Amino acid sequence: MKKLINSPDTIVTDALAGIAAAHPGLAVDIENKVITRAGGPQAGKVGLVSGGGSGHEPLHGGFVGYGMLDAACPGEVFTSPVPDQMLAATKAVNGDAGVLHIVKNYTGDVLNFQMAAELAEDEGIEVVPVVINDDVAVQDSLYTAGRRGVGATVFVEKIAGALAEEGAGLDKVADLAREVNERSRSFGVALTSCTVPAAGKPTFDLAEAEIEMGIGIHGEPGRTRTALAGARELAAAALEDVEEPASIEKAELVGRFERALDRVFRVLAAAPELPEVG
Amino acid sequence: MKKLINSPDTIVTDALAGIAAAHPGLAVDIENKVITRAGGPQAGKVGLVSGGGSGHEPLHGGFVGYGMLDAACPGEVFTSPVPDQMLAATKAVNGDAGVLHIVKNYTGDVLNFQMAAELAEDEGIEVVPVVINDDVAVQDSLYTAGRRGVGATVFVEKIAGALAEEGAGLDKVADLAREVNERSRSFGVALTSCTVPAAGKPTFDLAEAEIEMGIGIHGEPGRTRTALAGARELAAAALEDVEEPASIEKAELVGRFERALDRVFRVLAAAPELPEVG
Repeated sequence: MKKLINSPDTIVTDALAGIAAAHPGLAVDIENKVITRAGGPQAGKVGLVSGGGSGHEPLHGGFVGYGMLDAACPGEVFTSPVPDQMLAATKAVNGDAGVLHIVKNYTGDVLNFQMAAELAEDEGIEVVPVVINDDVAVQDSLYTAGRRGVGATVFVEKIAGALAEEGAGLDKVADLAREVNERSRSFGVALTSCTVPAAGKPTFDLAEAEIEMGIGIHGEPGRTRTALAGARELAAAALEDVEEPASIEKAELVGRFERALDRVFRVLAAAPELPEVG
Repeated sequence: MKKLINSPDTIVTDALAGIAAAHPGLAVDIENKVITRAGGPQAGKVGLVSGGGSGHEPLHGGFVGYGMLDAACPGEVFTSPVPDQMLAATKAVNGDAGVLHIVKNYTGDVLNFQMAAELAEDEGIEVVPVVINDDVAVQDSLYTAGRRGVGATVFVEKIAGALAEEGAGLDKVADLAREVNERSRSFGVALTSCTVPAAGKPTFDLAEAEIEMGIGIHGEPGRTRTALAGARELAAAALEDVEEPASIEKAELVGRFERALDRVFRVLAAAPELPEVG
């Protein structure tokens, strides 16, 4: 594994220390892993909070600033932040106009943000969550019920962040965030696997001339593996689903059937002897 | 080679077509490979032009726009653009306040921009070139006499671009560009080689746990190969030269001596039989 890191154990805190050193406009709580805009909450402005597992930088800490997020809380690599972080972030940006939680649709993130929202509401802070689910490649996935949330997050943070900066109320900011999500669709293609530092080796193997269509951002299985093709051809294949997400269900069923069959074949191939039938 | 391209032959024109489709604020001359801000030259504003081999995106086409470059001309991958492109770009952004050429210090770029400047001056356009040479890793290099020009280019384009947008004259804009370059120093580290699409294979090999310190952006040899170490240690080694560029010459001499010896050893190892001495 070739990475410019110090140790898998300190990746997140090292990165936070770097952000603190590079960006005097941010307040970085390294211990509790919360990045906020310096200067505390802005009275009367809706606060925007996002967060998720690390390893997708510059999400979300790189988008904290004027007209975008008010706070971000990074979890460990590919691991949801905990509700305490989210609660601390929510309280830190509360300017008494409510707080928007921008949540990528992964089960851990959704549950933890939900808990954090309940805790914040117990403390009298109004919270509205918006779940991002732009990835049209697969319907359900390894860490997700429904579609995964991916690149649309950046557009939501930018566009809803601009509206909040203009002084709009929580409902309007949340409505716009939902609209941006609904109008965004994405489809991932992997040339190679990522390597989680703590694991030290690629999450999966792809052959030299092979790619995976519809991959997730943590290496969650996509829809099919196929031969590397030209950019135009791959873009057209991805766009088919971006333009017609209705086709997902059928393709997903076919994909599941293929994967199930593949498992059967592998079990059969590995079986030392098969019982006779009849 | 796993790349999302159509063909090595059409990379640059495909990319230009993509830029044209994505950015209505730009005017893209795909045939002559010149990107300018839409709307033609701005009267009374110093024009900023840069360019260089492709393969370093978003340099330079990604930085054409308000407060940055007025035009960029991309060459083929790792190949200088030709003087005709640079001349076309210079004429396209000429608002009768002179044109600044921002040139990364590679011999081909420097010579071609010099020729373009002479041609432009023949047509009555005042041109001032600023050569960027921030890379303190080596003194001379495969395609460069003196230091190489690397990341400082972006800062020059941004900072001098902002001053030009404010209406400053050519001399002032050029002075600031030079100052930004003089205050910038960089040092490259490679974990792996790049793969030039037309070549289809890595330019050089690095072992699994090996890195190259002081590498150039085209894979030009750096100073030393060493074992992969922690980020803090590598940053400290690079910073030593960033903070004390005076040490370059000595280190460079040692590096050259080592490389020369290495060649001798390889020749000896490959020689079928050596003549007796005596």
